[in-house]
Amino acid sequence: MSVPTAKPGRRPTIKQVAAAAGVSTAAVSQAFNDKGRLSERTRRRILDTATDLGWSPSASAAALRSARTRTLALVVRRPTDVLGADPHFSELITGIEGELAPRGYGLLLHLVAGAHEENALYKRLAAEGRVDGAVLTDARADDPRPALLARLGLPAVLLGPPDRAASVPRIGLRHQGAAVEEVVHHLIGLGHRRIAYVAGPADLQHTRLRGGVFETALRQAGLRPYAVLHTDFTEVSAVAATEALLDADDRATAIVYANDSMAMCGIGAARRGGLRVPEDLSVVGYDNLPLGRWLYPRLTTVDQQVQRVGAAAARLLLARCGEDVEETVLDDRPRLVVRESTGPAPG
Amino acid sequence: MSVPTAKPGRRPTIKQVAAAAGVSTAAVSQAFNDKGRLSERTRRRILDTATDLGWSPSASAAALRSARTRTLALVVRRPTDVLGADPHFSELITGIEGELAPRGYGLLLHLVAGAHEENALYKRLAAEGRVDGAVLTDARADDPRPALLARLGLPAVLLGPPDRAASVPRIGLRHQGAAVEEVVHHLIGLGHRRIAYVAGPADLQHTRLRGGVFETALRQAGLRPYAVLHTDFTEVSAVAATEALLDADDRATAIVYANDSMAMCGIGAARRGGLRVPEDLSVVGYDNLPLGRWLYPRLTTVDQQVQRVGAAAARLLLARCGEDVEETVLDDRPRLVVRESTGPAPG
Repeated sequence: MSVPTAKPGRRPTIKQVAAAAGVSTAAVSQAFNDKGRLSERTRRRILDTATDLGWSPSASAAALRSARTRTLALVVRRPTDVLGADPHFSELITGIEGELAPRGYGLLLHLVAGAHEENALYKRLAAEGRVDGAVLTDARADDPRPALLARLGLPAVLLGPPDRAASVPRIGLRHQGAAVEEVVHHLIGLGHRRIAYVAGPADLQHTRLRGGVFETALRQAGLRPYAVLHTDFTEVSAVAATEALLDADDRATAIVYANDSMAMCGIGAARRGGLRVPEDLSVVGYDNLPLGRWLYPRLTTVDQQVQRVGAAAARLLLARCGEDVEETVLDDRPRLVVRESTGPAPG
Repeated sequence: MSVPTAKPGRRPTIKQVAAAAGVSTAAVSQAFNDKGRLSERTRRRILDTATDLGWSPSASAAALRSARTRTLALVVRRPTDVLGADPHFSELITGIEGELAPRGYGLLLHLVAGAHEENALYKRLAAEGRVDGAVLTDARADDPRPALLARLGLPAVLLGPPDRAASVPRIGLRHQGAAVEEVVHHLIGLGHRRIAYVAGPADLQHTRLRGGVFETALRQAGLRPYAVLHTDFTEVSAVAATEALLDADDRATAIVYANDSMAMCGIGAARRGGLRVPEDLSVVGYDNLPLGRWLYPRLTTVDQQVQRVGAAAARLLLARCGEDVEETVLDDRPRLVVRESTGPAPG
């Protein structure tokens, strides 16, 4: 068996440290915790090897302390009923579980109402040693969580576009904006001029990002948004927004939704209002949930690869928790998947 | 403040024992763990009070030992990709989280491949004191889990029709079969004679139960099932089953699906095959997911109250873990919700 070595650009694992020092991973753990029956010479050798390989003792020690929990946390700051309403989260959890389950890891799911509660929870989980690490969702402007988790010594990854300056590794597809541009160009190319956007809550980073790109792409074509309506991601709010957009003589001819389940509700609302999709109204979703492929008409949407991003986040976090897992490189970007729910603008 | 008393038919809580003995809940905990600074007289009084109120020391002590985890386990024995495909689980988790989140509890989600892995997991969770209790899903014939969890001293509830003889409390709506009968009568009343059932995996208890009722109800009307096809709950298998049922001159005129997401895929497959719903084909789902209310046509389905059952399971388990939570009485049964996807059988 060849001794694994640290590859450039990749974080070394505890296994690599153990192999290079010629000891077990348990011995590496003991060396950092100052426990066990290691001789001072062996302990020294392990610590030196770790330093040589660039294995950070501080973060790793925290991971090692709690390594036996085999539990990662996913804290979602949403009303509990939105979890059921937005399949995005099932997709994300599916992607994470796909990596955790084969390794005997569990996912500790906490729903919290607000920032204060979320931060208090991380403190408790860290203090009680309940989890090995945490996946953070819904990147926010001036996000205080990365600094908090670093202070708590709790390994974490943040779902969001990569950002080298961030204190916690961020994982997600790059160029989120490019997909929104692609959607706008697709609709303009089909002759649409009255294009509306049914967005998520205004305080989410991806809502702002996509909304900004949406307006810019339209402006570059000499157009303005027909409307941008914010929702709380529920079916009811999606239907209400759709009805508002279609209740005028110069109604919208194309609606872009912030997720697929809202888009599906939008199609239902349009059909009920006597409009055909895509003949009278074009609809674009966001997420590429499995169901969208099978509905009639099949949903045009943006493939966010939610499961793949969830899996990559889990792998990155597992690696940071000392597991011997190769990180997935997400070099792709979200892409428009054109199906049947978009078509030429009505005469 | 009045002293809470145990009501008949309801399990007493630690709070009731504490109030009746005139001590704190912490003191009750200490009495059972033989810890703390209680006098022997106080300790004796607490234990006697608990006995009087019918508070079981054995189960309660286990709950008390681990009460501080504020974590309940949900172990799902399914392939990881089915979690995303079947919104039933998001609904269930939503219902459970609705009770856990306000109390600062988390849900430890584990996906396991098989029975051996599931049982090993419960042993590890109990040994490591990782959770206060567990919600068991997918009741099976000759289910070995209740006995295992009782032996491990881990409070548990099993999702399934109530059964007084069961060693672990079961929680679910009664008369599951009555809803399937109601579906069959609804379709027969609309003139359908060629009625098919797209079921879940054959080894699940509810698959067998509903399949049996489906056949019996048809037989009582002098009919036989057009076909009963088993699936793994995925979209692909639902579409394949639908296409098989519609690929004949004497095709099925009504299809009952084991869940709503398969029914939605079935409607898509039928529409793609040139059939109108409900004019040419009637479709019935099962679950009553929010999305079904908003699609076009609106989905006729069986309201299983998945969220409400999840919430009731969480409350029952919390009570068994020593929390002062009133149990929800589920005196309802699943009911057919007639919407737009069913209609008179074609000429």
